[in-house]
Amino acid sequence: MSNLKKLFNPGSIAVVGASQESGKVGNVIAKNLIELGYAGKVFFVNPKHDKIYDQRSYKSLGEIVEKIDLAIIVLPAKIVVPVVREAAGRVKNFVVISAGFSETDEEGREREKELEALAEEKELNILGPNCLGFIIPKLNLNASFAGGMPKAGNVSFVSQSGALAVAIMDIARKENIQFSNIISVGNKMRIDEAGILEYLAQDPDTKVIGMYLEGIKNGPEFIKMAQKVSKTKPIIIIKAGKTEKSQQAISSHTGALAGSDDIVEAVFKKAGILRAENLEDLFALIELISNTQAPKTNQVAVITNAGGPGVLTTDAFDGKEIELGDPDDGIKNRLREFLPAESSVANPIDLLGDAMEDRYAQALDVLDSMEGVGALVCVLTPQDQTPVGKIADSIIAFRNKTDKLVATVFIGGERVEKGITKLKEGGIPNFSFPDLAVRAIDEYYAWNRRRIADQSGVETAKQITVDAGRQKKVAAIIGKAREEKRGALSFPEAQKIMAMYGVKTPNVTDIAAGDSLPEGIGFPAVMKVDSDKVLHKTDKQGVILNIKNREELERAYARMEDNFPGEKFIIQPMLAIKTELIAGIKIDGIFGPIIVYGLGGIYTEVFKMVDFLVSPSSVQDVADSLAQGKIKFLFEKTRGQNPYDIKNIAEILFGLSLLAREADEIKELDINPLLVYNDGKEAVAVDVKIII
Amino acid sequence: MSNLKKLFNPGSIAVVGASQESGKVGNVIAKNLIELGYAGKVFFVNPKHDKIYDQRSYKSLGEIVEKIDLAIIVLPAKIVVPVVREAAGRVKNFVVISAGFSETDEEGREREKELEALAEEKELNILGPNCLGFIIPKLNLNASFAGGMPKAGNVSFVSQSGALAVAIMDIARKENIQFSNIISVGNKMRIDEAGILEYLAQDPDTKVIGMYLEGIKNGPEFIKMAQKVSKTKPIIIIKAGKTEKSQQAISSHTGALAGSDDIVEAVFKKAGILRAENLEDLFALIELISNTQAPKTNQVAVITNAGGPGVLTTDAFDGKEIELGDPDDGIKNRLREFLPAESSVANPIDLLGDAMEDRYAQALDVLDSMEGVGALVCVLTPQDQTPVGKIADSIIAFRNKTDKLVATVFIGGERVEKGITKLKEGGIPNFSFPDLAVRAIDEYYAWNRRRIADQSGVETAKQITVDAGRQKKVAAIIGKAREEKRGALSFPEAQKIMAMYGVKTPNVTDIAAGDSLPEGIGFPAVMKVDSDKVLHKTDKQGVILNIKNREELERAYARMEDNFPGEKFIIQPMLAIKTELIAGIKIDGIFGPIIVYGLGGIYTEVFKMVDFLVSPSSVQDVADSLAQGKIKFLFEKTRGQNPYDIKNIAEILFGLSLLAREADEIKELDINPLLVYNDGKEAVAVDVKIII
Repeated sequence: MSNLKKLFNPGSIAVVGASQESGKVGNVIAKNLIELGYAGKVFFVNPKHDKIYDQRSYKSLGEIVEKIDLAIIVLPAKIVVPVVREAAGRVKNFVVISAGFSETDEEGREREKELEALAEEKELNILGPNCLGFIIPKLNLNASFAGGMPKAGNVSFVSQSGALAVAIMDIARKENIQFSNIISVGNKMRIDEAGILEYLAQDPDTKVIGMYLEGIKNGPEFIKMAQKVSKTKPIIIIKAGKTEKSQQAISSHTGALAGSDDIVEAVFKKAGILRAENLEDLFALIELISNTQAPKTNQVAVITNAGGPGVLTTDAFDGKEIELGDPDDGIKNRLREFLPAESSVANPIDLLGDAMEDRYAQALDVLDSMEGVGALVCVLTPQDQTPVGKIADSIIAFRNKTDKLVATVFIGGERVEKGITKLKEGGIPNFSFPDLAVRAIDEYYAWNRRRIADQSGVETAKQITVDAGRQKKVAAIIGKAREEKRGALSFPEAQKIMAMYGVKTPNVTDIAAGDSLPEGIGFPAVMKVDSDKVLHKTDKQGVILNIKNREELERAYARMEDNFPGEKFIIQPMLAIKTELIAGIKIDGIFGPIIVYGLGGIYTEVFKMVDFLVSPSSVQDVADSLAQGKIKFLFEKTRGQNPYDIKNIAEILFGLSLLAREADEIKELDINPLLVYNDGKEAVAVDVKIII
Repeated sequence: MSNLKKLFNPGSIAVVGASQESGKVGNVIAKNLIELGYAGKVFFVNPKHDKIYDQRSYKSLGEIVEKIDLAIIVLPAKIVVPVVREAAGRVKNFVVISAGFSETDEEGREREKELEALAEEKELNILGPNCLGFIIPKLNLNASFAGGMPKAGNVSFVSQSGALAVAIMDIARKENIQFSNIISVGNKMRIDEAGILEYLAQDPDTKVIGMYLEGIKNGPEFIKMAQKVSKTKPIIIIKAGKTEKSQQAISSHTGALAGSDDIVEAVFKKAGILRAENLEDLFALIELISNTQAPKTNQVAVITNAGGPGVLTTDAFDGKEIELGDPDDGIKNRLREFLPAESSVANPIDLLGDAMEDRYAQALDVLDSMEGVGALVCVLTPQDQTPVGKIADSIIAFRNKTDKLVATVFIGGERVEKGITKLKEGGIPNFSFPDLAVRAIDEYYAWNRRRIADQSGVETAKQITVDAGRQKKVAAIIGKAREEKRGALSFPEAQKIMAMYGVKTPNVTDIAAGDSLPEGIGFPAVMKVDSDKVLHKTDKQGVILNIKNREELERAYARMEDNFPGEKFIIQPMLAIKTELIAGIKIDGIFGPIIVYGLGGIYTEVFKMVDFLVSPSSVQDVADSLAQGKIKFLFEKTRGQNPYDIKNIAEILFGLSLLAREADEIKELDINPLLVYNDGKEAVAVDVKIII
């Protein structure tokens, strides 16, 4: 990845396509660069003008003799490539504002390919095309066609939507959110999410990264980078396009269980990304993290001047990792010393409606010494006598002497407005309603806890080496099926592959149409059609269960031959069912192979007890996921029920992940059912479908 | 229920405990009554003053010769009862502001009982005690100790927290929410939620009712009234105290499955109440419903000036009843006539970032004629050139000529502020973010759909008559067990009761310790201890399954006699298991008997496929609930699986509801498992535990 430092910290900028004409994008950018205090040199290029904003307008980039760190291109799409090509010898950083590339039609897509090839060849950094530009408030640098200059601070915001970036800057002004970088990534041709994350990880001015994304360009690279960066800086992403239908046709049961948004969810979790459910969540998290240090413990103390909002705050803790701490008698007694008798000294501490600033200040001082508390939340409703501003002052004063997270929930309209402004200017995050505050603190706490707990991860994953011998054998099996123009492997073929990855399958007898039934088959048995043309066997009566004797077997065979003339069949022992799982590989268009697993049986879709593994690094890694995931109840002792063998199941799933890594010819893999036991018996993959 | 019309529309008011002293509650109320424009007569009573606000201060209520419609009592708790008693002959309506009643200690609870008895005897309406009072903006009547006068409108807000009411009025000022009534209910001694609902249903100025409740006083009455009122006026409740632990000890499995908040959820659903998850939801719904008519269809059209917010809006429709309509070619062509080529004419319609007010107006006009659309949402981000105010104007102008619901989502800070003020003053609900708008419209639509669909309900429920003969028989069985000081019925007793309510149980052989085993028992069989002292049989090895022959039975019996000396035992046939349900009766402290049912088996708690029935009116009513509830998948044809018999299960559950109605001696009832089949076999209650 190229170093983006120069792009985002240029000493000189040329605007190609700058304009004198008001309302034009090239005019807004020119104006933004010279009127907002940027200290570097700015050059304008436009052959149609002599002067722009009283500066010389060059006929071409070539005319400028000085060094150009960054060129901003605001030209019709058609001439972008030639202009960049001409400049590529001396300019290495570009922002291509121009639209008319891959976001439009075939012609645009071709144009973008050409630009990309050029960038590749000449090693150029190009932001965009089809973007708003970027803004670095610390440098007073607005290299975009959005007006104004946000306050300088520690928040980086990266947006796939320029319009949303503009709206967010407007909200940020009101909420006093301060930025280190605002970057519009446009079509993400050369500089994608992963590249931006890498840059922002190194940016000393950035503490927290917010992103609005509609898609992700390079899934595996994104996961790797996000996983790395989120260990030092929280990444909050609002991922739009949830309901987007997956493009790929899905022919396996496992595949159908994994929606594209489920996979995004799993990836974000794996990478330690905080997912904002909506814009409000995004703002809440950004404001909180920008202004505070993560709480060191999960205990929170809440003070309030009214019971109702206290109850609502208590409710908000339901299902969260953070919780209301229990003050001990020492703390309670110290609170009682100055609080009226009707106050509540249980947490939330109710200071009562007539609380003045002194009661808030005293209560905070006492709670600061409450053991195990990592965060303090001050709730306020504006009663007639409430000195909102003074209370804000005393909270700010307290914050300056504590190492705990301090946040406020001032509930109201005009009566609390000035107080809130004070708080925000004082660097205290305020939330309009209790649940917003509690949710944000909870996510921040959880991010920090994971960060501390998780010392392994990416590096380990890298160390997994491909078993070349095994890979070759798998390739041979798949190659043969392909030669025979089959879209799926036969069960005996799948069985061979499963054996190589440690997945047990039942013994089968395979017979082709016309063969006579061999002797020595045990009962009860199951007979199935084994054909790449019959993928949903059960639905098509291609499975006959519970065959009890030779006579029934012969009848079953006759029926099968009738129903599926010319196909192959298999006979398996009928196994005892204890619990059915389903497991498989799904190739996601963005993130590559994903291991899907969950509870099987006829109600799989009803229960949706399904989870995903994204490039697990070891059997232990899988086991950890199993122990925390949706089917974790199988591994716990439940009402006299023995736990299932987590290691056995983890080995199978890890085996599948190795297979996915070593055999990229596999389009989908479906084990259904995977019978698992809690009496020492090994799990068996009763049916294995491998689509190639 | 007394008529509250006079209380909330008094022609004259006396303030007992009015005060001249600034800062006192009696002073604030006096001031609010005379300074804010109330047209009725106001009398002050306080023996310590001669004049209050230049008006005569009476020594006592008795001194006032004029008619007093309402007396507001602001006295120390101790003298409230005597004062009310003295006035009760001539004053029928009271607001008791004073605290110091049941919210405090035993003394306070006694005091409240005394006041209640007095009110009962003299037929008094009393709001409170321990309340803020009430405000009727239309009358310029602020009979509370909160300052200011909200705008008059169609929203009634009822609050169990006075402080929250104050905060909400403050927010409402900013959001331009206008009120018909603001009522603080305090301890709800005489006037509870049901009483207030009954009054507001008749109040012609009230279109929508918002409530903040921490508890519900009279559950059954509340359900009945809410069910009735919500058919004409939407009721939105934020119910605080979710995490409140249920007080009652729970000894059955079914009981443990029904948390108090789950039951509130079920009750609200039954009563057609819109439950606000938080204060923000409450405001969103109130603002929407106050200003618009419910959408007539579930199709929505969205216009936006930016792609990103369009995608976020689309996401917000995920899982909702309302959906984005598909414009037909006619509509698309008409849109294309005036939109730039790069615009999107699919829904959401993207007018692009340079859209001026004309593009918004034209698009709205076209979409107004889009077939099947019931609501239009206008999304806007403030690009530099966006004329926010003018766009607001054109949306208001459009709203004035359409019969569709119109709402806006103007996303931003300062740049959209004035536009939003315009919208709100023009009666257009605006939401800060797309998901808030979509969620609120969805709830409003669903309320209206249910309202139209649901023409039966309360009245039918009333018609269920008690079967006195059956009731007597049940009482006799329970009476006998009580005489024997047993806390639970034996299985044969429970079986007799089940038979009366149409619930099939297996044939059992019951034997007491020391009896010899009878002949003729079929195998496989199950042996169980049957004792009111062993409620969790399985956990305590009180069940031996799968007894195959006489020899095993004898061994089982010997073991049972060892483990449970002196107890009784039963022997049942071992039945084939297809699907296990769990069903039972739980007596909720507030709402009375609730029927709980769901998926059984060892993972009952894991799957939480549990639902609740609140006083169902018929077998059909239960069947409807089953068909829409969590176990509805059992009644659908799933992957070749036959559906289960919904009528059979509905009859059993309805039977339980009749039993709960007829036998209030039952504390809990637990059928676990209830074996159900999809092959024509009748469901069997294998184990029935009745706690008395």
